[in-house]
Amino acid sequence: MPEDTPNPFTFDIQFGENITLSSYDNHIVRHLSNMRGQFLDSEAYQRMLDEDDRLLYEVYEIHRPEVPGELLHGISIVHPGKVGDEYYMTKGHFHTVLDTAEVYYCLRGRGFMVMENPQGNWSVEPLRPQSVLYVPPCWAHRTVNTSAEEDLVTFFVYPGDAGHDYGSIEKQGYRKLVVERDGTPAIVDNPRWLPPEKR
Amino acid sequence: MPEDTPNPFTFDIQFGENITLSSYDNHIVRHLSNMRGQFLDSEAYQRMLDEDDRLLYEVYEIHRPEVPGELLHGISIVHPGKVGDEYYMTKGHFHTVLDTAEVYYCLRGRGFMVMENPQGNWSVEPLRPQSVLYVPPCWAHRTVNTSAEEDLVTFFVYPGDAGHDYGSIEKQGYRKLVVERDGTPAIVDNPRWLPPEKR
Repeated sequence: MPEDTPNPFTFDIQFGENITLSSYDNHIVRHLSNMRGQFLDSEAYQRMLDEDDRLLYEVYEIHRPEVPGELLHGISIVHPGKVGDEYYMTKGHFHTVLDTAEVYYCLRGRGFMVMENPQGNWSVEPLRPQSVLYVPPCWAHRTVNTSAEEDLVTFFVYPGDAGHDYGSIEKQGYRKLVVERDGTPAIVDNPRWLPPEKR
Repeated sequence: MPEDTPNPFTFDIQFGENITLSSYDNHIVRHLSNMRGQFLDSEAYQRMLDEDDRLLYEVYEIHRPEVPGELLHGISIVHPGKVGDEYYMTKGHFHTVLDTAEVYYCLRGRGFMVMENPQGNWSVEPLRPQSVLYVPPCWAHRTVNTSAEEDLVTFFVYPGDAGHDYGSIEKQGYRKLVVERDGTPAIVDNPRWLPPEKR
């Protein structure tokens, strides 16, 4: 092992009106314009975008070397809102090293993790404060905020060498969408989704 | 990838008088008798043991395959108390795959993580609720509870293939001890510790 192994470090998750980190290396912001093609209702998307390029979600990351054995970690914040009747969500991704897992711990808010594997199997698991979610190796995953007012905030940990593959799932979309029906969240089929054998 | 990829799953961290998990696979208990040779004051240790083989700490684990890409996770609970003037602590370990990290998120209590790498460099970081601690690859780590009344509870995540090597650090002990001095925690040298070149 190298002589210059980095020192251990500590930081705090600060629970105020917003949840913040006492230190971090990278702040990623994703606006509506970064999500073209992701929401089913493309007309509603364009109308919203013409008004304002809203902030949909943010990620605060701690930098670590992107190698096996290290653990990348940080927090994800999805703001409340909808495009048409579809709730704000992250783009979602497979890991580039497909067989790597991810652990989420929900700090605040209400929502779902929408997941899917390359065979087209799907899973939608609830997120609420103090819940731990395990995304096993090989499952694409996207966070959806179903609250009308509150951020959905999660702490995440994944292997250093995992990487992010956004393209594969972007092409055919996720099998399931989370939309508002009669004032409550509903999990519905994505009419644009294609099963693996038809892609 | 195999057709039978396991499904994603969720469980809750339940904050009551004790912190518990809504589901888990394994419950590890470590009593005073499991910690022979770990505390500096061996007479105080033996006196306590003759009275009662107290419960020092517990771990609740979620089972995952022990392979790279998976993430092992669970909670660790160190109860309050002292052996002589040395606070209750975990045995601590290197990972068998030495260059694997671990992330801790403190859920309750007060204490320290005592760490050391094979070169004999040391680090002692505080643990308090909402603090995240990163144990980089190659650092042995031990949790110490410095509260007089409260459990020290942490949520942990580490790579599936990491493994636990208790023996290496057990032989020479940690370089630093956490003891009570004038009613407050103090970090002191371990008189039994040997530098790498003298082992």
